Amino acid sequence: MAECITSLQNKYIKLAAALKQKKYREETGLFAVEGVRLVEEAARSHYRVDTCLYVPKALEQKRVQDILNRFKNSGTRVLAVSNEAYHKVTDTQEPQGIMALVEKFQPDISDLLASEKLPLLLVLDHLQDPGNVGSAIRSADAAGCTGVILSRGCADLYAGKTVRSTMGSLFHLPVLENVDLPAFLAVCKNNRINIMITTLSDARVYFHVDFTRPVAIVFGNEGNGVTASLLPEADERLYIPLKGKAESLNVTAAASVILYEAVRQRQYMG
Amino acid sequence: MAECITSLQNKYIKLAAALKQKKYREETGLFAVEGVRLVEEAARSHYRVDTCLYVPKALEQKRVQDILNRFKNSGTRVLAVSNEAYHKVTDTQEPQGIMALVEKFQPDISDLLASEKLPLLLVLDHLQDPGNVGSAIRSADAAGCTGVILSRGCADLYAGKTVRSTMGSLFHLPVLENVDLPAFLAVCKNNRINIMITTLSDARVYFHVDFTRPVAIVFGNEGNGVTASLLPEADERLYIPLKGKAESLNVTAAASVILYEAVRQRQYMG
Repeated sequence: MAECITSLQNKYIKLAAALKQKKYREETGLFAVEGVRLVEEAARSHYRVDTCLYVPKALEQKRVQDILNRFKNSGTRVLAVSNEAYHKVTDTQEPQGIMALVEKFQPDISDLLASEKLPLLLVLDHLQDPGNVGSAIRSADAAGCTGVILSRGCADLYAGKTVRSTMGSLFHLPVLENVDLPAFLAVCKNNRINIMITTLSDARVYFHVDFTRPVAIVFGNEGNGVTASLLPEADERLYIPLKGKAESLNVTAAASVILYEAVRQRQYMG
Repeated sequence: MAECITSLQNKYIKLAAALKQKKYREETGLFAVEGVRLVEEAARSHYRVDTCLYVPKALEQKRVQDILNRFKNSGTRVLAVSNEAYHKVTDTQEPQGIMALVEKFQPDISDLLASEKLPLLLVLDHLQDPGNVGSAIRSADAAGCTGVILSRGCADLYAGKTVRSTMGSLFHLPVLENVDLPAFLAVCKNNRINIMITTLSDARVYFHVDFTRPVAIVFGNEGNGVTASLLPEADERLYIPLKGKAESLNVTAAASVILYEAVRQRQYMG
């Protein structure tokens, strides 16, 4: 068996622990991914995995052995670490004992538009909750979106909770972070992508709207909705009718409802 | 100003703190609701509020004054407590300094069926995550459901995180907890309510299913789906098609998508 890192001062242990903080994720261009399934997804994706840390006990799982072999063959640094050292780097309450340090990857907007699929873009404007951002990316993946755009000021895509909430979907479709939305919406206009903004004022019920066109659909902050200065850019304003006494839907729920209306309508296209 | 409770041994402080634990919620039949908006919702609802605790600083808000006046008029016990005492009872990281101890209220199944509205029932089978249970109740409220049914083994309806995630919807529509699902589905059958179960096997795409009939829609556990022994009870089995590479949708997202397909279809009914 490989030697096992026990020192909490080891540079990879210090690096992995530091990645819990956004500052160090930005400085290094790396983020951490934990658990068998998510590390598998990272390994299968086009993301470059810099380093993989694991505790020897995790080797009892065949899936972990397979991942490690794959990493060894592809030149990823693979390090066995003690339980104590792993405890320092983990961000979860019930760690599975395997973590990948992954290089951030940001597609260009032009990559996003080069897809041959009919554009279905999910745009998140200043969402605050990492769980909401992650779950919305998961729903976008499920609905076959061609990309997700996170505005400047959204919860960090690479925070542990966001990554976990994507359930791996981060590795499945292009996700752009830290995007200047006015500039992005201008690109949409130039590329004949319809800009749809969710808002309660002067809006149509979402299921009366035609989603069989190329569309980018904008959802706003949990408390305040979409930034007011973006509203004039909308080709369509839409809302979800509330039938009971709830004041609003959770933003992930709202995005899922509207994206699946697009799925439904597109099902019946020529 | 009223006298302010400072002792951490005060019986109401001890009671409120104990309600963080399910055991004491069951023993007393009470649960705690925190924050201005949720306490307002409780005050306006048909739930009986036993006691309201607040810190004097919260009185700076007109809304808090209004709530307290309402409680005083309706015979609810209203107690000012010190910041330190409040700190002991709160379950949130940024407490707003007002908490209501509310009596649990469980409608009968017959109350649920007595509604004049076309039945649209959300049934949650062994959901584990309190946030999912709470958000699903919020979506059910938004979609105008006539009730929500939580099976035995669901995350506790009255846990702090569940109550917070409902955003007040708990007080808007009948929510039954701890329900024996086989017995409940038998009642549905007797009342000509169509039982729809979400499952991947031998199922139809949800938007091909007719939701303009009286329906109860069952969603399963986050990892394992709906309990297998319930499947034979289904009048319809349905699923949400996955267009990308995601393995599944978050259960709240899934419930929102299907409940809103029911809203859409019912919009066009005679």
